Amino acid sequence: MGRLAIIAGSGALPGLVAAANPAVIVRLAGVDSDAQGEAVIAARLERLGQLFDDLHGAGVTDICLAGAMRRATFDTSALDEATEALLPRVMSAQARGDDALLRDIMAIFEEQGFTLRGAHDLRPDLVAPLGALAGQADQVGDAARARAVLAALGPLDVGQAAVAAKGQMLGIETLQGTDAMLRHVADTAPGSRGVLVKRAKPGQDLRVDMPAIGPETIALAARAGLSGIELQAGHVLLLDPKAVIAAARGHGLNLWAVP
Amino acid sequence: MGRLAIIAGSGALPGLVAAANPAVIVRLAGVDSDAQGEAVIAARLERLGQLFDDLHGAGVTDICLAGAMRRATFDTSALDEATEALLPRVMSAQARGDDALLRDIMAIFEEQGFTLRGAHDLRPDLVAPLGALAGQADQVGDAARARAVLAALGPLDVGQAAVAAKGQMLGIETLQGTDAMLRHVADTAPGSRGVLVKRAKPGQDLRVDMPAIGPETIALAARAGLSGIELQAGHVLLLDPKAVIAAARGHGLNLWAVP
Repeated sequence: MGRLAIIAGSGALPGLVAAANPAVIVRLAGVDSDAQGEAVIAARLERLGQLFDDLHGAGVTDICLAGAMRRATFDTSALDEATEALLPRVMSAQARGDDALLRDIMAIFEEQGFTLRGAHDLRPDLVAPLGALAGQADQVGDAARARAVLAALGPLDVGQAAVAAKGQMLGIETLQGTDAMLRHVADTAPGSRGVLVKRAKPGQDLRVDMPAIGPETIALAARAGLSGIELQAGHVLLLDPKAVIAAARGHGLNLWAVP
Repeated sequence: MGRLAIIAGSGALPGLVAAANPAVIVRLAGVDSDAQGEAVIAARLERLGQLFDDLHGAGVTDICLAGAMRRATFDTSALDEATEALLPRVMSAQARGDDALLRDIMAIFEEQGFTLRGAHDLRPDLVAPLGALAGQADQVGDAARARAVLAALGPLDVGQAAVAAKGQMLGIETLQGTDAMLRHVADTAPGSRGVLVKRAKPGQDLRVDMPAIGPETIALAARAGLSGIELQAGHVLLLDPKAVIAAARGHGLNLWAVP
């Protein structure tokens, strides 16, 4: 691997990747990140031409997109030439959904000669391993029900998470994300003792938008009155593992991963 | 048709059915209903044997379940003999989901010799007709996206409604119902100009749990910043049609029905 740049989204992941890998940090306008690195490049999505020049100038060969990019600003009146040329592609990808947009942005970086690296590849110690992590695995019943719903939605590029309780669906993740869904379940169906299942979508490119849970996800699941959380082993990041497992134990939640 | 009894769930539907059809009203413990009829039978789900006797005694031959039954109480320590014998069936249906439970309760009434009548059959004037009802039909784009999501979930007995905006899913109905989903969308993704699609699940028995919208659904859709609502013609009730259409016009929402 040559020199690494981390395009820093929000949340803990960019910092966790940078802590274990010497890297240049790219800060996007509109995205809050306190990740620290060897150097910082300030960037705007409207000025990708400038960003490519800055990255090449810093000797960067490898790129890692880490964290949520959802709040990055994009002002079509401030485009540089390179970005203007890419605009029709980005717009059409945006209309096809979250994943399509991210896949297209990744492809653009690859065309510029950068190698794309997944956070799971740079921090394999964060990836959920198979088996029980806290309490015990409880993968029949509600977990199986939520898993079936996610499997049905996957081909439509919808749903990384769902909550089932006593055979009934209480939450299906949409654009607003897992935490918003858990808050909704807490508000509208408290004390259900249900199960949250979180998985990658079938065919999802883990280098871009790998599902992740943190101690806050555990706290929200506990507030929603759930009994446990099932992850997809190898396909969900724990941010960070010790804190997540301690939180699950502290709240008396089962936490496990299945294939 | 012989004598009709309406088992009154919550909401406006029982009253609307009773207003057009002479009927005995069955009031279930725990369910709020102000529907008025020729006579009233007070009933408890734990005492179905008593209810069957009361219905036969009143000369009832036809039964209509109307409105939401979700809040009916069911205390397993207060069962009469007939209900106790039915309990294993009801419990196993309950574990299989909302529809399974309702289908099973319907089957039990049919075995007792009653004819089941759908609210849509007793009030055909409330059923959504094909075409534009307010504003104009806008059935491509977001409506098609939400429809595809419901079609994928239907075989799992999940989802009568979903919201899509700019190709992204913002809400997928779960047990809490359409109004709870719209409140969630209003709180977490306001001003999206998205589309709500409401349909029956494939194979859903319309005599039991027919999807319905009222003026409140329109007001919630407007509060969520949606641009329109698509219904399934012949499969969704309007409670009541004049008020629903007036509300849609008043809020500047498109309202239409497709096959």
